[in-house]
Amino acid sequence: MLTQHTVRAYDEELQFLARKIAAMGGQAERMVDQAINALVNADHTLAQKVVQDDLLLDEAEREIDDKAILVIARRQPMATDLREIIGAIRISADLERVGDLGKNIAKRVAAVAEGRQPNSLFRGLEALAELALTQLKDVLDVYASRSVERIGIVRDRDEQIDAMYTSLFRELLTYMMEDPRNITPCTHLLFVAKNIERIGDHATNIAETIYYIVTGDQMPPERPKEDRSHGVTLTDDGKSG
Amino acid sequence: MLTQHTVRAYDEELQFLARKIAAMGGQAERMVDQAINALVNADHTLAQKVVQDDLLLDEAEREIDDKAILVIARRQPMATDLREIIGAIRISADLERVGDLGKNIAKRVAAVAEGRQPNSLFRGLEALAELALTQLKDVLDVYASRSVERIGIVRDRDEQIDAMYTSLFRELLTYMMEDPRNITPCTHLLFVAKNIERIGDHATNIAETIYYIVTGDQMPPERPKEDRSHGVTLTDDGKSG
Repeated sequence: MLTQHTVRAYDEELQFLARKIAAMGGQAERMVDQAINALVNADHTLAQKVVQDDLLLDEAEREIDDKAILVIARRQPMATDLREIIGAIRISADLERVGDLGKNIAKRVAAVAEGRQPNSLFRGLEALAELALTQLKDVLDVYASRSVERIGIVRDRDEQIDAMYTSLFRELLTYMMEDPRNITPCTHLLFVAKNIERIGDHATNIAETIYYIVTGDQMPPERPKEDRSHGVTLTDDGKSG
Repeated sequence: MLTQHTVRAYDEELQFLARKIAAMGGQAERMVDQAINALVNADHTLAQKVVQDDLLLDEAEREIDDKAILVIARRQPMATDLREIIGAIRISADLERVGDLGKNIAKRVAAVAEGRQPNSLFRGLEALAELALTQLKDVLDVYASRSVERIGIVRDRDEQIDAMYTSLFRELLTYMMEDPRNITPCTHLLFVAKNIERIGDHATNIAETIYYIVTGDQMPPERPKEDRSHGVTLTDDGKSG
């Protein structure tokens, strides 16, 4: 039979996972924020820092996985607790990917800095990143509070991110057509924009996992998690085709 | 105490997961193969089929997740079996992402078909896809046979994929600089190439999960799973800068 002490130890194990996820979330947000700052200010030192910080996030994911499996083996949890633990494994994988995307942005700082981009492009990227980071922050708040009724907001914002990404994609193609010297840096910026858009997708994944943890059900599909840039074509005068 | 019948039912549950993973793997391979064929032959009907097939893979992932959690709750597995089940959850998430990448390639068929690409580009993409699909096939064979000693091959091939991707990236930038009419289709091909490269990353993730299932340890890090395209820049005469 479980003693009070054992139960408390179990609770602490579950709380350890939740705290660790919150810490990973904070770090992933910071990495993405710093990567965008490094890009806009051509700050190579900051970019380097982001690349190195990614190791910490990889380590945190491994730690959560190991702990989660240890807890399952030791406590043989049922229902809600089991969903909580499996959920932690899933969310940490999403946060690790967000960190990778931040690192990927940071790695492009040098290639982008060689060209000169119009400020409007950077403003567009910053706005997109702000939206994606707000999305991530909100979803981590929902994780902390378990208030699933706020999940709808997260979904709506994902649509805004996709629309903003598609418009940025179009703008980048236009700059590339205007001047071949823009092609290389704008290509890297296209990937940066895509990476930011994918951060939004990971936030949506996390929202779905939280819904599952709390309710035990899969979140009903509402809309496809897809940007609309696949079909974007521009004629060479920069008009939509 | 467990009866023979109960044990057999448990074995069958574990085998169900392994079979389902194998089926998901086969379908993910097929989707990517068909997406590349659709792209090369501008086959819109086949592209449409790939987009629809992705729903089956999403459904299969959900089914594996639900079953895995049911088995953990019912059987309270220890050590190897638990790694087996958690491993199935992870691998199915990777395979679902491979299917998404196939769908993403298929969605670009229309935008790419509007331009006219040199055949060499398609040959390059096909070669890259063949390498990534061989990688995925091999890793699924390792999963079926549990012969982790073959995992080194998978890792080496990932390096080849990264090198081929980086050279294709360079080639695509060159075409874009030669003629602004190439910019839109080549941008979509850049994303196709990136998607194929990411299939190789997912195959590597799966290899790491198999290593973990079999040994109980994390696979020791050997090399970063990263392509080298982040730093690629070309001057406007197409020479490397």
